[in-house]
Amino acid sequence: MTFSRVAIVGLGLLGGSIGLAMREHLPGVASAGWDADPAVRERARERGLVATIADDPAEAVRGADLVILCVPVGAMAQAAHAVAPGLSPDCLVSDVGSSKQGVAGALEQALPNHAIIPAHPVAGTEQSGPDAGFSSLFHHRWCILTPPAHAEAAQVDALAAFWRALGATVEVMEPAHHDLVLAVTSHIPHLIAYTIVGTASDLEEVTRSEVIKYSAGGFRDFTRIAASDPTMWRDVFLHNRDAVLAMLGRFTADLDAMTSAIREGDGQAMHDLFSRTRAIRRGILAMGQDDARPDFGRGDH
Amino acid sequence: MTFSRVAIVGLGLLGGSIGLAMREHLPGVASAGWDADPAVRERARERGLVATIADDPAEAVRGADLVILCVPVGAMAQAAHAVAPGLSPDCLVSDVGSSKQGVAGALEQALPNHAIIPAHPVAGTEQSGPDAGFSSLFHHRWCILTPPAHAEAAQVDALAAFWRALGATVEVMEPAHHDLVLAVTSHIPHLIAYTIVGTASDLEEVTRSEVIKYSAGGFRDFTRIAASDPTMWRDVFLHNRDAVLAMLGRFTADLDAMTSAIREGDGQAMHDLFSRTRAIRRGILAMGQDDARPDFGRGDH
Ligand SMILES: NC(=O)c1ccc[n+]([C@@H]2O[C@H](COP(=O)([O-])OP(=O)(O)OC[C@H]3O[C@@H](n4cnc5c(N)ncnc54)[C@H](OP(=O)(O)O)[C@@H]3O)[C@@H](O)[C@H]2O)c1
Ligand SMILES: NC(=O)c1ccc[n+]([C@@H]2O[C@H](COP(=O)([O-])OP(=O)(O)OC[C@H]3O[C@@H](n4cnc5c(N)ncnc54)[C@H](OP(=O)(O)O)[C@@H]3O)[C@@H](O)[C@H]2O)c1
Repeated sequence: MTFSRVAIVGLGLLGGSIGLAMREHLPGVASAGWDADPAVRERARERGLVATIADDPAEAVRGADLVILCVPVGAMAQAAHAVAPGLSPDCLVSDVGSSKQGVAGALEQALPNHAIIPAHPVAGTEQSGPDAGFSSLFHHRWCILTPPAHAEAAQVDALAAFWRALGATVEVMEPAHHDLVLAVTSHIPHLIAYTIVGTASDLEEVTRSEVIKYSAGGFRDFTRIAASDPTMWRDVFLHNRDAVLAMLGRFTADLDAMTSAIREGDGQAMHDLFSRTRAIRRGILAMGQDDARPDFGRGDH
Repeated sequence: MTFSRVAIVGLGLLGGSIGLAMREHLPGVASAGWDADPAVRERARERGLVATIADDPAEAVRGADLVILCVPVGAMAQAAHAVAPGLSPDCLVSDVGSSKQGVAGALEQALPNHAIIPAHPVAGTEQSGPDAGFSSLFHHRWCILTPPAHAEAAQVDALAAFWRALGATVEVMEPAHHDLVLAVTSHIPHLIAYTIVGTASDLEEVTRSEVIKYSAGGFRDFTRIAASDPTMWRDVFLHNRDAVLAMLGRFTADLDAMTSAIREGDGQAMHDLFSRTRAIRRGILAMGQDDARPDFGRGDH
């Protein structure tokens, strides 16, 4: 089975990128979309993010055999309710939310009579909104599917094929395990980045202009992450609380140990940690998940 | 006054970049160099990092009117002692170390009869060694000079002109203030990055291969920072202990507050912080200290 009409709900970074990627990689598949925000719908029309943009959510999903919800995790239930009246009985519902256990529960409750296979493309930038999407966002990135136990294999396969067509590599995972893995690789890094940028903004001894000027020493990478959408990230921390708190506990314990090493002048403990962490970096470069050029070959270097 | 012969001690990322930048921007100035490691000297000769590479430190600095020490902060005293026998009495000694109070003290003790003006170009990458340097490293970056109170104005001006010629913008700062500013904009970000990458490597519930695969969610930026040279960073934390511990205390308190917000489901506190941090990012983009393109326009996007 393959999909012949895909509806995208929420036309920001993720929704817009799916639409643009479909136009490039799946030109035979019809695309439709809707966003709660009229200004976003307007801009999405101008950019041609999907072929048809309806002003009514039920209208947007009518006739679709796949609907992908691309709204913040906390808005998934609301978006599902909005489209419910237009959904075909055999339409597969999926999403792109950054946490999966909470979303799965919310969607099953909102659409008890529909097949639901949650998904999470592990691809993003710090930008958001209808101008942020681009067609190659998913190239060489993983997309994690978290099908419920009762999911139909043919639908899982079709959704996997859809994501592969957009350039992604697909993995299947338990939702609880997804939430733990992403807590480490995404949620905690974002929380730390937001926090240190906040700390730096509040200092009395160091001015904000000094922080900005001398950011090239390492800080600027954190500011990029900490420029991500506040609503999206608030929702992630509200919906993946337990996994985030568990991982945060480990990080805090490790940071306490490094603080003690600095206080006591334990150069060996520092050198050991600082050497160990290079192995992970080598793995990321070897897997093609990053670029080794300094600052990714930025123009001014 | 201008310099006619500059000697670089330590031919890694910083030393090599200064040599290459001199060849491009100051072709009339003679360059010489030395590194404690014979293999580094050999490679530096092959790449032509400086015009003349001596096998003896005193030989390398003979006739130079500026010597720049480009070794880890903890090796500055040793490097100063090594070159001392060859230094002309009127030679200015400078460095590029990432912390300044400790280096100033070490150099004044090692070379009591020489003019010393410490400096720190706030420019770097996570790579090190004689292959890492490139001539544009200092373009559009700040270089902070921390001259002692008794420094000669003409020498400060000459050193500032040298860095400007290499593409940097120069600022003058008190060494103690430098160490506080850089603790926030560079040292703490590195410590946090090393720590979270260490935490992720040690998990039992999440495999290392999962961490690597799903790093595009935010984690990979931390791994880049945490791939920096272990010796350099151990020395920074040993030499800038007080400022680092002070700033770490602030960060830890702020992280505790965010942890409580997550535990209590306080979405407003999260949204407030996550919105506030965007201002700093805008400042960095406005100052030309980073590139707004997603992932700096990496090839695969
Ligand atoms: N950004 C990333 O890096 C990334 C990566 C992977 C997955 N995700 C996930 O992808 C989803 C979308 O994120 P995004 O980055 O694409 O965000 P985005 O650019 O802000 O787009 C979300 C869009 O959904 C709209 N919206 C909000 N509530 C809605 C509702 N109830 N019904 C219909 N539309 C609604 C928003 O309108 P307004 O502008 O009016 O709010 C916005 O246009 C989130 O669940 C996020 O966790 C994000
Ligand atoms: N990397 C950055 O981002 C950055 C930015 C601004 C400032 N800095 C500062 O710049 C300085 C150099 O850092 P880097 O990144 O250029 O390091 P690097 O690439 O490792 O280069 C340092 C070189 O100095 C050599 N060396 C070590 N001890 C020596 C000694 N006693 N005498 C002579 N040579 C010696 C090293 O040899 P071995 O290879 O045998 O150790 C190495 O070749 C440090 O003080 C650092 O804090 C670094």
